[in-house]
Amino acid sequence: MAKFMDVHRDMQGITAEKLMEAHQADLAIEGEESVHFEHAWADPESGTVYCLSEAPSAEAVQRVHERAGHRADEVHAVSLEA
Amino acid sequence: MAKFMDVHRDMQGITAEKLMEAHQADLAIEGEESVHFEHAWADPESGTVYCLSEAPSAEAVQRVHERAGHRADEVHAVSLEA
Repeated sequence: MAKFMDVHRDMQGITAEKLMEAHQADLAIEGEESVHFEHAWADPESGTVYCLSEAPSAEAVQRVHERAGHRADEVHAVSLEA
Repeated sequence: MAKFMDVHRDMQGITAEKLMEAHQADLAIEGEESVHFEHAWADPESGTVYCLSEAPSAEAVQRVHERAGHRADEVHAVSLEA
């Protein structure tokens, strides 16, 4: 298992409700890919959403996001933390 | 006070020691701008570093990073969380 940060762009105007809804859609199916989405942060102005997860691979992260209806634009393994 | 996520690019090959050193350099002076850097995550392969902070403004976040010697490429106010 490793940590991943993924980024969604072009989400301008996202609301707290929409972010929660999207996050819940990920949580509902993440177990099938052994992924856990720990946290999501959104900037409605620039339309950027960041998701922090623990997962077996970047592909597993992307599969959950795709099945939940919101493919990520980037998925990075963040192997270092401070 | 608000939450911010900032992004540094072109940090390919960053090590755990270098990340910790950079983070400590921020922590050492952040108080002067009323900023607090809560966490940093790095992907040495793509050279991407994400920093989560609490701060009065994006400009304050950038000022700390600049003075510590590592200007951010993007600073986003992340007003929503899930």
